[in-house]
Amino acid sequence: MHYRKVLEIAMGILAVGSIALDSIKTPFGHGEKILGGSATYFGASASFFADVSVVAVVGDDFPSEHITFLQRLGVDTSGIERRAGKTFCWAGEYGFDLNTAKTLDTQLNVFADFAPKLLAAQRKLEFVFLGNIDPDLQRNVVAQMEHPKLVACDTMNYWIGSKPGALRKTLERVDVLLINDAETRQLAGEANLMKAAKIVLGWGPRTIIIKRGEFGALMINDKTVFGIPAYPLEEVVDPTGAGDSFAGGFVGYLSCARELDAAAMRKAVVFGSVMASFNVSELGPKRLGQLTYAEIETRFRELRALTHFEDI
Amino acid sequence: MHYRKVLEIAMGILAVGSIALDSIKTPFGHGEKILGGSATYFGASASFFADVSVVAVVGDDFPSEHITFLQRLGVDTSGIERRAGKTFCWAGEYGFDLNTAKTLDTQLNVFADFAPKLLAAQRKLEFVFLGNIDPDLQRNVVAQMEHPKLVACDTMNYWIGSKPGALRKTLERVDVLLINDAETRQLAGEANLMKAAKIVLGWGPRTIIIKRGEFGALMINDKTVFGIPAYPLEEVVDPTGAGDSFAGGFVGYLSCARELDAAAMRKAVVFGSVMASFNVSELGPKRLGQLTYAEIETRFRELRALTHFEDI
Repeated sequence: MHYRKVLEIAMGILAVGSIALDSIKTPFGHGEKILGGSATYFGASASFFADVSVVAVVGDDFPSEHITFLQRLGVDTSGIERRAGKTFCWAGEYGFDLNTAKTLDTQLNVFADFAPKLLAAQRKLEFVFLGNIDPDLQRNVVAQMEHPKLVACDTMNYWIGSKPGALRKTLERVDVLLINDAETRQLAGEANLMKAAKIVLGWGPRTIIIKRGEFGALMINDKTVFGIPAYPLEEVVDPTGAGDSFAGGFVGYLSCARELDAAAMRKAVVFGSVMASFNVSELGPKRLGQLTYAEIETRFRELRALTHFEDI
Repeated sequence: MHYRKVLEIAMGILAVGSIALDSIKTPFGHGEKILGGSATYFGASASFFADVSVVAVVGDDFPSEHITFLQRLGVDTSGIERRAGKTFCWAGEYGFDLNTAKTLDTQLNVFADFAPKLLAAQRKLEFVFLGNIDPDLQRNVVAQMEHPKLVACDTMNYWIGSKPGALRKTLERVDVLLINDAETRQLAGEANLMKAAKIVLGWGPRTIIIKRGEFGALMINDKTVFGIPAYPLEEVVDPTGAGDSFAGGFVGYLSCARELDAAAMRKAVVFGSVMASFNVSELGPKRLGQLTYAEIETRFRELRALTHFEDI
């Protein structure tokens, strides 16, 4: 049973990003041209909480079974455009230290000309996730939204380095920035993470979520900090999509929350962490396809138990 | 006011390790031949909770003001032997990534022949901290103790690589092993941290505490895992001694706890984390010399607030 079925107050989510065919090699598994991309991982993850509508582009080589995979999870795929040409391909490799991927090959293909144009119904959605794409495109998506309640945004070192000005303009329109440690430091030009986060908070986002992989996550706003460790896993097969699965759990839960207050934001970080922890335990988004909401809830409570300590 | 004054049930702690003259360079501060060493940081930190007796060796060049520094904190320095020769010297440098030190120079000097011999009163102490020294010496210390209630032990990659057999024998006598991520993996020969920890738990320790620097700490035993993020700091000047300060808070608190149960162990990890967070904010052990117990308690509660989240 999905979260939205529990509360029945979930509002719709728009997710814009990539859909890719990934070739992944890790010490614990490998796959050729498996389903990937930020919109895929986000959509599959958020689908456990709310209705998600995905905007992305694929080529005429894209297997229809991948569309079916998303549809079975309840993802609205009507915004996935199919164009002549090849689907975006990424090839990457991870060592025993699964924290960072080594990119072996990137072929943008049809993704090179991606210019997301939203359908009328999509413009009315309340929650927006801007996957890791050109910040100019991200800003263009926000401009098309009628009255978004919350805009969450991912980015990466590539855009921080190549389009810092465009990214700064996009950040003015963003409520929550999801980013990793090194990217936060790079973006702000400041070695201390907390100082760096405060600098970036001055540029627009009300909240920054720092994703730290196996070390957990931090949420920082102008008043407080919230931190959790990652759910400890004995089997990590493939970290690809961990960040987008995190974002899916985070935005997904918030879209069900009665209020976007501090308590809901914290729980959303925990749900994000839970979704990422499931995702990395199998190659690609496979685990998300087999997940149940009961498992999510159990792991949320496990994370609560393993971070609890009493007052002095 | 120290913790032991609050509860008045604290039992004594024996700490065996190094006392050194450190030359440290970080992007945020530097010092020549300042007070350092595992016994120093542990003793200064644990002194806020309980009576600590330090066993170590220094040379005839060791400034008496350093002994005074420890004595002012209430550390029993009668077990610090002064020998002809020079004090152990370490020189290290940290980059903007303060996580790892680059050792520039190590001169063991009088520390090369360190063979801790405990005084009669020290053998009766209930809590033991074995600082990062030769595992054969660590085991020799445990053998001299009459009825230790808890033995905590630190080690490092050097001993894991050079004396694995001796270290394994020492671990059979240890209750709590404090270690970092990479050392845990190296010790167990296993890439997955949780699996590695379980392997090491099979060798003797009932509990493993994995110190992760700016990413916090994990405590693992055969039943449960406990994790906390590090206290977020806007100023980190010098990470030297963070691990030993952590151990001082951890063992120090436990020596005051009415029972060594799961709740006390968790709180001890938090106190360890709090002490490490104070220590890194100034060069050497300076901050510990100025600390008050009220500050420790405040930061404990801040860490509690920043890790709290509600149930679903």
